[in-house]
Amino acid sequence: MSTAITNISSLVTNDPSLGDGPLGLVQDAAVVIDGDRVAWIGASSKAPATDNAVDAAGRAALPGFVDSHSHLVFAGDRTAEFNARMSGQSYSAGGIRTTVAATRAATDEQLEANLLRYLGEALRQGTTTLETKSGYGLTTRDESRALRIAAAHTDEVTYLGAHVVAPEFADDPAGYVGLVTGEMLDACAPHARWVDVFCEKGAFDGDQARAVLKAGERRGLIPRVHANQLGHGPGVQLAVEVGAASADHCTHLTDADVDALAQGTTVATLLPGAEFSTRARWPDARRLLDAGVTVALSTDCNPGSSFTSSMPFCVALAVRDMGMTPDEAVWSATAGGAAALRRTDIGRLAPGARADLVLLDAPSHVHLAYRPGVPLVSAVWRAGVRHQG
Amino acid sequence: MSTAITNISSLVTNDPSLGDGPLGLVQDAAVVIDGDRVAWIGASSKAPATDNAVDAAGRAALPGFVDSHSHLVFAGDRTAEFNARMSGQSYSAGGIRTTVAATRAATDEQLEANLLRYLGEALRQGTTTLETKSGYGLTTRDESRALRIAAAHTDEVTYLGAHVVAPEFADDPAGYVGLVTGEMLDACAPHARWVDVFCEKGAFDGDQARAVLKAGERRGLIPRVHANQLGHGPGVQLAVEVGAASADHCTHLTDADVDALAQGTTVATLLPGAEFSTRARWPDARRLLDAGVTVALSTDCNPGSSFTSSMPFCVALAVRDMGMTPDEAVWSATAGGAAALRRTDIGRLAPGARADLVLLDAPSHVHLAYRPGVPLVSAVWRAGVRHQG
Ligand SMILES: [Zn+2]
Ligand SMILES: [Zn+2]
Repeated sequence: MSTAITNISSLVTNDPSLGDGPLGLVQDAAVVIDGDRVAWIGASSKAPATDNAVDAAGRAALPGFVDSHSHLVFAGDRTAEFNARMSGQSYSAGGIRTTVAATRAATDEQLEANLLRYLGEALRQGTTTLETKSGYGLTTRDESRALRIAAAHTDEVTYLGAHVVAPEFADDPAGYVGLVTGEMLDACAPHARWVDVFCEKGAFDGDQARAVLKAGERRGLIPRVHANQLGHGPGVQLAVEVGAASADHCTHLTDADVDALAQGTTVATLLPGAEFSTRARWPDARRLLDAGVTVALSTDCNPGSSFTSSMPFCVALAVRDMGMTPDEAVWSATAGGAAALRRTDIGRLAPGARADLVLLDAPSHVHLAYRPGVPLVSAVWRAGVRHQG
Repeated sequence: MSTAITNISSLVTNDPSLGDGPLGLVQDAAVVIDGDRVAWIGASSKAPATDNAVDAAGRAALPGFVDSHSHLVFAGDRTAEFNARMSGQSYSAGGIRTTVAATRAATDEQLEANLLRYLGEALRQGTTTLETKSGYGLTTRDESRALRIAAAHTDEVTYLGAHVVAPEFADDPAGYVGLVTGEMLDACAPHARWVDVFCEKGAFDGDQARAVLKAGERRGLIPRVHANQLGHGPGVQLAVEVGAASADHCTHLTDADVDALAQGTTVATLLPGAEFSTRARWPDARRLLDAGVTVALSTDCNPGSSFTSSMPFCVALAVRDMGMTPDEAVWSATAGGAAALRRTDIGRLAPGARADLVLLDAPSHVHLAYRPGVPLVSAVWRAGVRHQG
């Protein structure tokens, strides 16, 4: 069954061969969807006959957002911790460990219901591809079930047993790395595409992180790295060294880090929701872009440090506080995320691409930054199926 | 007809006699609505029998947002100007004058349709009272028709003929003040409740602003002032001197300004959307609160400097960047706005208050800051009538 979406005032394709500039902008456009794929793109006046027609009535369209970094298999609540932090009060919370305890105690059904809730919320905001991670289990049983639950609902699943050292191994971090690279990996690898590690002071150092990523690679997982969020460290250069798909956060970078990213193939994924919700300094997207680094934007959605599922909000922050132009931010939230996931079927709209499309209640993609906080997503197609925003 | 909303996990009443703290928080609450008023508030288990029942199912509720500062009678588009500003490019736009030209050229029907669009958008985001202004007409005809159109759709209408000097009076600002305080005022006063002036370098100085406010007062309008947005100036102290309901923006304040606000009855209305969209420094809400000033939060929704209609977004910014706690920001976005409009029937939920209520897809009001950018408003009642979020 084919559907033509006509009278799109301005269409972001991310395909420069189809339109103007890096976004491949087409004015007065139509998109024809056939099954789960894009079949045709061109001038609205020349759209071919189809089974169905949808009149965009002058609204703008863009590829569905690709959120390449989230942590959505969790249970429990950290509202009080957030409230205390933002109210300048001390709070004796255990941070990630609070969520670990609640996640371990939850049933599979509870974890799945929570995941589905946030996947639905993200979809209503235009996210048509969402990566998510384990990392709140930290036992072989709990990490593997998190990945199993995630894999039932998304293709982009990341093994993050190396999120923090499990509380049971507080005095034996080497023992925990042994578990993460051994028995836990064996149980987890069948459910995941990616292996990730939190390479940061207080979590895993460069050698430990390398061991985790290399072990994952031997089991067929592709590396990605939580790198340089809280301070300088070896994470970014390690990511480039192992050929990771993405180095995520990149908040604290030396010139050598930027050079490494510019010369390698690793995408820099920036997560402004984390800086927003922890009142931290902003990553400098401008510096990375000017050096020629490929930049992605993502939510980092998690209950501790960034509880937003809104890619439009990340676009607005990136423009306001990270030196990105509206065009760059929109590219990074779509094509950039696809690059960070090494996907060529998403993040763009062209014949043959997956039919993931967002229609905005606005005449241009610039409005995602121009109208911050306003829910502008009016309709979403994912793999050719329409969902209302 | 009466309706009970039961199983509200956490209810903000803004009435300390009904619950805990300044927000008057009630846990496991119910609200009974009778006609357009709140009839009863208490424990969900003790809710009286009613004609209808709505199960909030553990969601939080709060008074509808009171957005006490917007500019929604306009036509035209300034996307290109915004895009250029955020892309570091120069743009030879006329700023407010671009919107003035488009607004003058628009038909009444176009202006009304535009206003209704943004009123609906705000309502879906939980705004149940919205003040709006003239200021893009700058002729007697165009200012009075803006107010007439606004008054058909909201009770809170502000005469802002003194937004900027009309282009026709570029060489005769005194002549323009004469018009604003004379013939234009005569035509506008019947449609408005408030008189406002943009007291800022490049707009109107202290003496001109005083003349505008005093003339408005003589025609029964109550003063409010655009003050100290772009730099230091006489606006805030003038607002206190004339007993204005609110001094709006308050971004650049001396100690004397803060003292004046603390000793007077004028509310300080902070508009973080403007600082967000112009990359300006943030107003210091903490300083004002610590001095004992009443603070309101509002959107300043307008196509030039702050094109957001989202009160939840303003709450999140106030917490992140202006030193407010989540509780303070929620109070300022509801009760604070009501104070800035000198209203006691809105901004709170108590027997006799107008039944303006927002149900959140979250267990507490803190989530408005904890989950930035996420559309959390799941249902809205305005004057007892339910609107879906
Ligand atoms: Zn993360
Ligand atoms: Zn204003």
